[in-house]
Amino acid sequence: MTHGAPAPGSLHPDITPLAFLLGRWAGEGEGRYPTIEPFAYGEEITLSHVGKPYLAYFQRTWSLDDGRPLHAETGYWRCPAAGHVELVVAHPNGIAEVGEGPLTGTSVEVSSTALSRTTTAKEVTAVVRRVRGDGDRLTYELDMAAVGVALSSHLRATLHRVSAPPS
Amino acid sequence: MTHGAPAPGSLHPDITPLAFLLGRWAGEGEGRYPTIEPFAYGEEITLSHVGKPYLAYFQRTWSLDDGRPLHAETGYWRCPAAGHVELVVAHPNGIAEVGEGPLTGTSVEVSSTALSRTTTAKEVTAVVRRVRGDGDRLTYELDMAAVGVALSSHLRATLHRVSAPPS
Repeated sequence: MTHGAPAPGSLHPDITPLAFLLGRWAGEGEGRYPTIEPFAYGEEITLSHVGKPYLAYFQRTWSLDDGRPLHAETGYWRCPAAGHVELVVAHPNGIAEVGEGPLTGTSVEVSSTALSRTTTAKEVTAVVRRVRGDGDRLTYELDMAAVGVALSSHLRATLHRVSAPPS
Repeated sequence: MTHGAPAPGSLHPDITPLAFLLGRWAGEGEGRYPTIEPFAYGEEITLSHVGKPYLAYFQRTWSLDDGRPLHAETGYWRCPAAGHVELVVAHPNGIAEVGEGPLTGTSVEVSSTALSRTTTAKEVTAVVRRVRGDGDRLTYELDMAAVGVALSSHLRATLHRVSAPPS
């Protein structure tokens, strides 16, 4: 029986343009939406690689009021062609998101191209993510169309790199 | 700035029927498909919770020949109604999988209800997963229809629980 996964190899050339995302990040954000009360959250993001042409992505947030877990999501970032990013994300509320969009320097904008869901999930019809890296600082904004509401600002956060990516 | 996510709370009642899946698992499997040579792989699976109505799922495999990474996938397992499981999985090759199916004791069978993909991903049209827990032993089989091939056996593996779920 094999007890451990191998250590990651060198960064795959495809994802060199995404290397600015690698690491563990921590920070805080603000959420709002026409249907809910605004809220503040803590957030942890991990982006790592294993030598293949993708970054593995894991994120979770919690309430700054009482520490209870809020959202989480996990998936993969790809960069199959220069200046073009593909994203696949699973959400624990039963949503699967596929998105694509341009990468310019260390700014990426990904718009959903497919959103599918389980029977019990809420209807989400569009997600647009803008992510910007600036050294050890990462910011993002996320717009969403859901439950009958047109594309609206939902999340914005600022994180700082707290360690190199885990292997 | 907030540097750490909170510890998980008690298991959410919705996922009590899935508690048999919790933990870190390691083992080996065999892959085959009409279009490829058979292969053997090592595998690591982590299933954890944070007190919310889902299990977070992370998996990766590597070649037993040379240790190079093969597949990986990540997502969430839900059990919103007795005897019924929902699954959302992101694949690093650009596929997003949504599936549902029955849970009977510690046996679950999940059939894809939606498979979406990025521009560069291969076409996968159906995935059926059968997972069985037996104490510290976990087995699964995965059938897949892809690249023009009808639903065919693709993977089977046996894993053992190597530790309790990480927080």
